[in-house]
Amino acid sequence: MSAGGSTLFTGIAELVTNDPARSGLLGIVPDAALLVRDGVVVWAGSAAEAPGVLDRNATGGDAVETVDLGGAAVIPGFVDSHTHLVFGGDRAAEFEARMSGAAYSAGGIRSTVAATRAASDGELAARLDGFVAELHAQGTTTFEIKSGYGLTVADEARLLELASRVTDETTFLGAHVVPAEFADDPESYVELVSGPMLDACAPHARWIDAFCETGAFTVEQSRRILRAGAERGLGVRLHASQLAPGDGVALAIELDAASVDHCTYLTDTDVAALASSRTVATLLPGVEFSTRQPYPDARRLIDAGVTVALASDCNPGSSFTSSMAFCIAVAVRDMRMTPAEALWAATAGGAAALRRTDVGNLAAGSRADFVALRAPSFVHLAYRPGVPLVDGVWKDGARLS
Amino acid sequence: MSAGGSTLFTGIAELVTNDPARSGLLGIVPDAALLVRDGVVVWAGSAAEAPGVLDRNATGGDAVETVDLGGAAVIPGFVDSHTHLVFGGDRAAEFEARMSGAAYSAGGIRSTVAATRAASDGELAARLDGFVAELHAQGTTTFEIKSGYGLTVADEARLLELASRVTDETTFLGAHVVPAEFADDPESYVELVSGPMLDACAPHARWIDAFCETGAFTVEQSRRILRAGAERGLGVRLHASQLAPGDGVALAIELDAASVDHCTYLTDTDVAALASSRTVATLLPGVEFSTRQPYPDARRLIDAGVTVALASDCNPGSSFTSSMAFCIAVAVRDMRMTPAEALWAATAGGAAALRRTDVGNLAAGSRADFVALRAPSFVHLAYRPGVPLVDGVWKDGARLS
Ligand SMILES: [Zn+2]
Ligand SMILES: [Zn+2]
Repeated sequence: MSAGGSTLFTGIAELVTNDPARSGLLGIVPDAALLVRDGVVVWAGSAAEAPGVLDRNATGGDAVETVDLGGAAVIPGFVDSHTHLVFGGDRAAEFEARMSGAAYSAGGIRSTVAATRAASDGELAARLDGFVAELHAQGTTTFEIKSGYGLTVADEARLLELASRVTDETTFLGAHVVPAEFADDPESYVELVSGPMLDACAPHARWIDAFCETGAFTVEQSRRILRAGAERGLGVRLHASQLAPGDGVALAIELDAASVDHCTYLTDTDVAALASSRTVATLLPGVEFSTRQPYPDARRLIDAGVTVALASDCNPGSSFTSSMAFCIAVAVRDMRMTPAEALWAATAGGAAALRRTDVGNLAAGSRADFVALRAPSFVHLAYRPGVPLVDGVWKDGARLS
Repeated sequence: MSAGGSTLFTGIAELVTNDPARSGLLGIVPDAALLVRDGVVVWAGSAAEAPGVLDRNATGGDAVETVDLGGAAVIPGFVDSHTHLVFGGDRAAEFEARMSGAAYSAGGIRSTVAATRAASDGELAARLDGFVAELHAQGTTTFEIKSGYGLTVADEARLLELASRVTDETTFLGAHVVPAEFADDPESYVELVSGPMLDACAPHARWIDAFCETGAFTVEQSRRILRAGAERGLGVRLHASQLAPGDGVALAIELDAASVDHCTYLTDTDVAALASSRTVATLLPGVEFSTRQPYPDARRLIDAGVTVALASDCNPGSSFTSSMAFCIAVAVRDMRMTPAEALWAATAGGAAALRRTDVGNLAAGSRADFVALRAPSFVHLAYRPGVPLVDGVWKDGARLS
């Protein structure tokens, strides 16, 4: 697309807008068109109205290029609000052992910490570039990345610096696990995280996060760390209630966290509190899939009025998928979401979990981040699990793949 | 590859041979090479031995081309022994309704029958070509296709004729469901299937199959149909025990079927009988995934000594996935298979279900059908669910994608 030029995308069998001004959860427009200029959606609507829109619309005298998508369903690019993509090594052997009968051990994080510390910047950056290409090819156009495999001042800062080269949505997760060298003195590690490590990391991060769970950080430790981050201007998010109910959800709401992630084990009090808060519940079906744990009940949350997001949690230990389509299929099968709810959660829901309104939807003014599917309906994302349906991906109006 | 020339594939971090002469279920060779000539594997083994092999091996004086796969894991092409890929329409709306709470109805097959009968040969062939491209891109190099959405003499024959243009593994499934026009007289339909319909279809088919289940065909009806097919020289396979235990597995063994498919509900007698038979139990995880039914217990079968295959059952009603990698991931998560057992079942197991030894393995003499993964180990197929890991696909030594 030439600078300043406009592009009209036609041949859209079904356009998912997620526009609340339209009917239905997904604001679907059948037989649609999309007008894009300067990386932004200028207009979205019925193809029949496109000629009139072009006439009325100031296209600056430039020619309007037309791209025919040949009957594709078009959806907003996926917004993956929870990943851990800067790390060294992998844990395929641990996965194979677990799937052959061994129990899951969160201590496995420490093996990734060792491999990450040992990796050079160049190695980590090359790996990260590979993941970014993989995300794009699968239709993810906005993604968050957490640190958390460095766990020293220098390593956490370098992971965030690397992450910030590929996304604005970076999260400082020094409080991922207590590193081996602080095993006997976790309080000193909390002090390090909320002091010097935060100082070094805050310039490279938009968010702060903690893993609030038995075996990781207590509610009190998490609160100290998150408050310190908030005082430095970072937004708050939290890992909680993955393995058992706890007070993490209440903490997230207390701190007006943008999102509390996992939410596999929730009390009725948690659900009610979430429903009357601004905090999104982000569910991570890849984790339960890859650890053979029971799935969270998305239906219960949605019926109570909670805003739900889906994310991949892409990481080498508990969920090494980067496929949002896979997450949708599993959420529909096993978390009692409808196909429409699951797609909304993977796009607009992810945007809400990042407090973004410019992505996750396709309405006038939103970023022109969208995916053309090799399918006539978004339903195929759940109906055809595992099949690569992404035919084309555009970010800021430019074709990525 | 030039005709008569040889190609040496190198840079293979891990080669899955499925060669029983090697150790382990998968006969894995680390740091391997593969020598291919005229579409056939001439030699597979450790890269260190490749130079000696080239010296010894008569390469006909032709130059040996070398292809470096850059550290990929290489596996045999998937063998998908159970699909229904010739049909019209889709059933996305039925899927969406079911996933939003409606009960599964096998009667839905009849809507696909109506759409298939209404479709022209050209429409069905174009659709089929699209599916073949999709299978190839996902690493499936051998696949079976069943008829069963025509259910008239002319329509069943034309579906098989279309299928036989893209695969040798064609299956006559006139006994898929009793069509609406015979609802009051199923016995007459059985007579049609085992008489004139078989006469018209046998020239285009290698196999005969029946859906032996309450609501479809009884054991007696299935026996008549399958015996008639066997008398015409067709190999026998059977759909059985999908929704409840029954006598279908015993019938399959009685008729020396190559495979009995679904096997979701098995008695101990069924399992013992399978273990002492030549009949493969083909499990179809996509069906349980997409119908929210309980999964079959592969562990129980394997531990009893039954040969297990995995297949997609790709069809628009109960399992519209064509991804063997997805089937592997689900089988590992939910059917208690190890990653190695699941890959074996999706390659060598599928070959056994088609009574083939030339595919599903990579040893001297086998077809040069193989897949290079964007991963250092086959384990990633289950470890990275939903992620498109297929980097290159070769069939008969020629690159497909
Ligand atoms: Zn996480
Ligand atoms: Zn079937």
